[in-house]
Formats: sequence, structure tokens, C-alpha cells
Amino acid sequence: MPSPKALKPKRDINQLPRKKAVFFLLSVYPIKTEVIKPNTDLAKTIADSLYAANLTPRDGDVIAISAKVVSFSEGNLIRLEGIRPSSLAYSLANKYSLPPEFVEAILAEADEVLGGVSGALLTIKNNIIVANAGLDLSNAPPGYAIPWPKDPKSSCEKLRKKLRELLKADICTMITDSKVHPLRLGSTSIALAVSGFQPVEDLRGSQDLFGKTIKIKRMALADALACAAQLVMGEARESCPAALIRGISLKRVNSSFSTEMTISKDECLYLKNLKPSFD
Amino acid sequence: MPSPKALKPKRDINQLPRKKAVFFLLSVYPIKTEVIKPNTDLAKTIADSLYAANLTPRDGDVIAISAKVVSFSEGNLIRLEGIRPSSLAYSLANKYSLPPEFVEAILAEADEVLGGVSGALLTIKNNIIVANAGLDLSNAPPGYAIPWPKDPKSSCEKLRKKLRELLKADICTMITDSKVHPLRLGSTSIALAVSGFQPVEDLRGSQDLFGKTIKIKRMALADALACAAQLVMGEARESCPAALIRGISLKRVNSSFSTEMTISKDECLYLKNLKPSFD
Repeated sequence: MPSPKALKPKRDINQLPRKKAVFFLLSVYPIKTEVIKPNTDLAKTIADSLYAANLTPRDGDVIAISAKVVSFSEGNLIRLEGIRPSSLAYSLANKYSLPPEFVEAILAEADEVLGGVSGALLTIKNNIIVANAGLDLSNAPPGYAIPWPKDPKSSCEKLRKKLRELLKADICTMITDSKVHPLRLGSTSIALAVSGFQPVEDLRGSQDLFGKTIKIKRMALADALACAAQLVMGEARESCPAALIRGISLKRVNSSFSTEMTISKDECLYLKNLKPSFD
Repeated sequence: MPSPKALKPKRDINQLPRKKAVFFLLSVYPIKTEVIKPNTDLAKTIADSLYAANLTPRDGDVIAISAKVVSFSEGNLIRLEGIRPSSLAYSLANKYSLPPEFVEAILAEADEVLGGVSGALLTIKNNIIVANAGLDLSNAPPGYAIPWPKDPKSSCEKLRKKLRELLKADICTMITDSKVHPLRLGSTSIALAVSGFQPVEDLRGSQDLFGKTIKIKRMALADALACAAQLVMGEARESCPAALIRGISLKRVNSSFSTEMTISKDECLYLKNLKPSFD
């Protein structure tokens, strides 16, 4: 294929009248900050960065923040060196090529352990199925692991309250983390908590193009927003732990959500049918 | 919480110097088209809509297109009325409250059936774990189901070639579909195929904030882009089957991908540990 220069399409490809402008546009801005530390005032740091980037938040904007920096700023750090692994931890560490201290920390953090592959355990925490109970070694100080925030919903709500005050805008917040998915190579993001908008859009009862009623469709709006934010946030050492999302039509509510984005094993197409095998 | 008006943050919240502009911005534009029918020239329809919306594609833009309209425009339609269900189809239909003809169509389309819940079967197709083998009744003509495109990678490549010619810009394409995830309420999107860029970003070997080498992290860039596109495309009757994504840093390659975004059951944190139970 040739690599043509970007030219305007020729007039003859279209007879439709041109509209004045695109009616809708989703924008995602990265929020690059100084390195976050325990006791950093995260809301103020984000507000400072927005100001420095000349970005004025508007009512309805969503600010997505990485779970890791939320947790780190709250002082949640697990020191691995001091941990004495149990025999179960040693056995799992041996089986899945993980440090026994890290496995012990995962066991303490997880609600359930379902198995593992080399380098990761499959766990459930807060009814979220995730690798290593959300514990992360990357971007943690050497010898430490960073867990999820203790109460993501409450952290998200507090961040919204503080950011609304600092920014003088009725913004929404969400706390995001990356997550691997069955049979997919690589991770995308999910929302651990949101504040200020309905995280799941219910399309049931609306009609399709042929007038048929849609029966079961819901859209995981917050998870999709987390993925959009991830595209600008980066995962390595970008120091870009947050993003501002503008232009999405949200159902605004003055409340916060976390487990409302999850379903039970019994309702779940996957967990209802796939059971731990422990081979 | 009060609902303050959107005002500029006060100067005193920040002592940092203001930069001239945000260094990076991801934009997602909806591409609203006429209703797609079998034998619609999809590339031309999209080019027409971009022109009508006054949106001039640039080199490196990604055009995401719903799998359903790609398939429909290629004439892929399954007429359910003519189908004679097998006894297995009747049995699964009865167990999971589905029409037997629809179940038979799923059985023909799926590479593997893992189980079900009321209203949906859990299947694997093209090494993607998905409800109902990707068959969709919504936005299909009454009495029909729409499957995935027969060869998503080839369709994606053809669309890219045609769109590059029509738009005179070196754009990328991707074909997207919605998908539910374990224990999550609602669906997000994944990429069935991409053309023109590397769909998975490999972060292994890069360094974190503390100089530690990242060992296992990959980012499912194409799936995250699919979610960003989903935010403007809608799922009901919006007639918005495509989106243009601009501003993302991509590793451009002149090739197409599909199964390169999947991993085997044996490498999969979920499928390695969770096995079909058929209770």
C-alpha cells in the first residue's frame, strides 16, 4: 500500500451537505504530576497540574485517577521484607514462581484465591477478579508492594469533594486500575470506584434500529472511561497518574459507586460456568 | 456537596508556571452514517459521513468500525426461521431460555461452548471468549441474527485500503464488538481486528519510577481504543457505527492483526485455572 499524504478528500466522494461542525467530541487530557508520595495531597497536586497545563475543568468533566497513586498518597504500602510467609504461601510461591513474601501479602489482601500462572495468582477482591489481589510491585519503592485503596468508594468520594472545591467545577471522579482479561494479550483498565455519575448505562427497554426492544444490554460506561483514560496515562514511568475526560454524556448523580459495577458469580456468564480446578 | 459554578481555579492553588498548552490530547469523534444494509459500500459511506461532518482524517488517525455493520455490509446474515435445531440445541435452549433456532446458529458459529446463563451461552470463537459466539439479534432484521465478519482481519485490511484511498490519508482501521467480562455488570468493547498499527504495547524491559525493570506488563492498546470508540458509538439505535480516534501514539506497521491479540488457554490466568463445570 502507498503512504499518501493527508489531503482533503475530493468533493466527488460525497454529495451530502456539510454540517457546520461535529456534534459531539470526546476529549481525554493527560494530567502529568510530580511524583506522588505517602501524604501527598493528591487533590491539590492534581488541581495544580491542571492549572499548570492551562486546563480549566468544567461541570461534568470526569477526572480519572490511578488506584496506585490514590493508595500510595493514603500511605498504603506493604513492606514485604518483614513478612513471614505461611506454608501455603511457600507452596504457591514455588508453584507460580513468585516471592513467598509477596504471595503472603496477596493471601492477606485477597478475598479468594482461584489459582495462578507463572508470575501471578488469580484472585477475587471486592468481587473483582484480578491478578495478585490488585497488589503491584511496579512503581512501588523497592521492597514494597502497593495494594488497592482500603475503601475505593470513600476515597473516590473524598477526592471528588476536594477537587470540586479546589477547581470550582462540578466534576466527577473515578479510581482506575489495569486488569487482564480471559484469553486476551495485555491489560486494559476498569473502574474500582466512581463518584458523581451512574457507572453503568442500562439500555434495556430501548429500541434497536428495527423497533425491537433490547432485552439484556447494559454498557459498562465507567470501565470504558477507564480504558479511554488509560490511553493517555501510561503504565511505566510517565508520572501521568490521572486524566481528564470531557464530552461524554453522563447521568449525573450525587453519589458514589464501587460494588454496584460488579455482579455475583451466580449471575456471571463466566464464573457460573467456569470453576476453579486446582490442577 | 454544593454545586459550584465552573469558575477558573484561583491563582493561589498553584505556584507552578503555566505551560502554553496541553502537550497531548486524545480525541474521539463519532461517525454517524445512514443505516447500513447488505451490499452498502461501507468505506464510501464512512468517507461520506466524515466529509459531511467536516472531519478531515489525518495520517495516524484510527477509524473504529462496529463488527456488526462490517458483517452486515458484507451480506452476513443468518436467517433463523429456516434452521432445524438439533436435540442438543433444544436442550440448551430449554436450559438457558433461548430460541432453539438461535442456539443452533450459535452451535454452528462457535468453536467451543462452555456453558450458559439465562439468555446467553458462553462460547469461544477465534480464541475469543464471548457470549453467543458473537451472534447478535439487536439491530438485525426481525428473524435474523448477525454473526461476526467471516474473516475480521481481512475485512479490516480491506477497509483500511479503501479508506486510505478515499480519504487520502494514511489512517488505521479496527473492527470492534462489545463483550461482557467476568463479574462485571455491563459490556465494554474489544478489537476483533486492527490494521496499520501494533495492537498490543509491550512494556516489558522498560523501567518504573524507581528504576526497576517491568517484567510482565503489556497494554492491550487496541482493546482500550475500542472502549474509547464505544463511548461515542452507542449500542442501541444511534446509527453511529464508527468513530475516529486522533492523538494516540501508535507504533505504525503496514500489516493487520486479529489472533495476535489473544493468548492460549494455557497461558491465560483465567482459563488455566477455571474449567467448564457443566452443572
